Amino acid sequence: MDIRDVILDKRYGKPLSKEQIAFFVKGVTDKTIPDYQISALLMAIVLNGMDSVEMTELTLRMAESGETCDLSGISDHIVDKHSTGGVGDKCTPIILPLVASFGVPIVKLSGRGLGFTGGTIDKLESIRGFKTEIPVADFPEYIRRCGAVLSAQTPELAPADKELYSLRDVTGTVDSIPLIASSIMSKKIAGGANAIVLDVTCGNGAFMKDTESAVALSNAMINIGKIAGRPVTCVISSMRQPLGVAVGNILEMREVEDFFNGKTSEDLLTVCLTLAASMLRMSGLEEAKEFSKAYALLQEKVQSGEARDTFLSFIKSQGGAVN
Amino acid sequence: MDIRDVILDKRYGKPLSKEQIAFFVKGVTDKTIPDYQISALLMAIVLNGMDSVEMTELTLRMAESGETCDLSGISDHIVDKHSTGGVGDKCTPIILPLVASFGVPIVKLSGRGLGFTGGTIDKLESIRGFKTEIPVADFPEYIRRCGAVLSAQTPELAPADKELYSLRDVTGTVDSIPLIASSIMSKKIAGGANAIVLDVTCGNGAFMKDTESAVALSNAMINIGKIAGRPVTCVISSMRQPLGVAVGNILEMREVEDFFNGKTSEDLLTVCLTLAASMLRMSGLEEAKEFSKAYALLQEKVQSGEARDTFLSFIKSQGGAVN
Repeated sequence: MDIRDVILDKRYGKPLSKEQIAFFVKGVTDKTIPDYQISALLMAIVLNGMDSVEMTELTLRMAESGETCDLSGISDHIVDKHSTGGVGDKCTPIILPLVASFGVPIVKLSGRGLGFTGGTIDKLESIRGFKTEIPVADFPEYIRRCGAVLSAQTPELAPADKELYSLRDVTGTVDSIPLIASSIMSKKIAGGANAIVLDVTCGNGAFMKDTESAVALSNAMINIGKIAGRPVTCVISSMRQPLGVAVGNILEMREVEDFFNGKTSEDLLTVCLTLAASMLRMSGLEEAKEFSKAYALLQEKVQSGEARDTFLSFIKSQGGAVN
Repeated sequence: MDIRDVILDKRYGKPLSKEQIAFFVKGVTDKTIPDYQISALLMAIVLNGMDSVEMTELTLRMAESGETCDLSGISDHIVDKHSTGGVGDKCTPIILPLVASFGVPIVKLSGRGLGFTGGTIDKLESIRGFKTEIPVADFPEYIRRCGAVLSAQTPELAPADKELYSLRDVTGTVDSIPLIASSIMSKKIAGGANAIVLDVTCGNGAFMKDTESAVALSNAMINIGKIAGRPVTCVISSMRQPLGVAVGNILEMREVEDFFNGKTSEDLLTVCLTLAASMLRMSGLEEAKEFSKAYALLQEKVQSGEARDTFLSFIKSQGGAVN
């Protein structure tokens, strides 16, 4: 196969075959396709698009381009959560303990900051002693301790995606629904998720500037999930204003603590409970199959202080100072 | 200026400014812009197009990216002729002596074969002794001897175009009207042409497969010529069948000789006289200002044998064996 024919097909608007996409991802991973051909194909994808079958193929081939996490020893219902990020987004350290307080095992692989938005890992590292490099082999031990584990993504996870992202960053091809959707989904699948809740942020403070593009990105990821057999729920949340009141790593972690002490802003509460309820629904927990029921149960966990206990136990479990 | 912004503008369909195009061509020439960014921009140009002002700017900046020929010492009416090429195209060695036989000085810089179509230089080199590497400084001497000179393009002519072409060749971005038009025009302008006759071949044996795209390419080059102050005439000729009867360098040169001996096919005669008449019209020759008059004068030159004498003197002038 010649990569030039793959580029020409996409240039002329044809859908790429499974074999062409596999050939492309392999060439990106083992660096046998030169950068200038990769970037030409990326621009053709940006301008001529990809259908759901192509996006799924790109997702799966990128997911298997490096290490993959097998979490089947922990649970068959590993529900992962991902946010497309934004200024002031501190949902992950709230949602993890919330869901884990139901005894649902939570494994979360997070990234660092991208562009102007702070990453979850950076935020948690502002807690003294908090460890974010947890080996996959140790995940079960962490789950046993507090029901949740959070780790920084290893560079070995979906290396093809990493390679493509570094090229996209310098060739004006970041903002593209097929490329964003397959990038997110490939990392979630490589990370071992059986089901995925996606927080698609939208507005000035986020990558998706309007509702229309947030809906389009959501549909793309839901369709990839359907074809790949990994159910996806998307929650579109507004980022026209920073979520909650604090922006900045340490300040945001204080706001997380306040959340569990019952002091929180309405917007942050709504977004976190909505995402957590979506995760509970997909976790296989019988009493949480209806969204409204799951939401009510979560409110109780916050009010009773149980969620706070799980939060403190999660921070301690990863070596963080709790005062 | 950041090349990423230039790529993004074209990606989002904006016309590039003169400054952006100058920055791009300079970066291509001095190799400060990496290949992967160049190819991303090329694909964006292919898919989102360029208007006439952008194409002209690209043309002029590529024309001045290397050596340029100053032929003003020979004439202010240097008319160049270029063919987009095709199988069996042997017009150049016919037209040069034809036009030169009117005392109109002809300087022709030709390329070698591109893809499946043979180049004029390769064809003429099949004549024993024929020299094709003539230094620009010697052009006046050749013109004095027989009225015409033909030389291979130096690699120093429009190096930005050369650089872009080598990338286009491997990134599926060859077939693009703005890129083809600016490539052709940049070399003609760097070569010192004041006016240009373009033979736009069209059909299975040519780069432009249908009349529609041949017309579009012609219009693009005519518009560049208008803006750049170099009048352009385009002749669209059919390449559905090879032009004339012979294909192959030596065989084609024999067919050229036959032409001047009055033995030729109707299609080759029509194309060559049409192109030559177009050149005469642009040469400033008073009696050839009307196309039909120029065409009739050319027919006389062929019939009288005068054109044949100029042809033999042209071959001898460049060191070729005439038997």
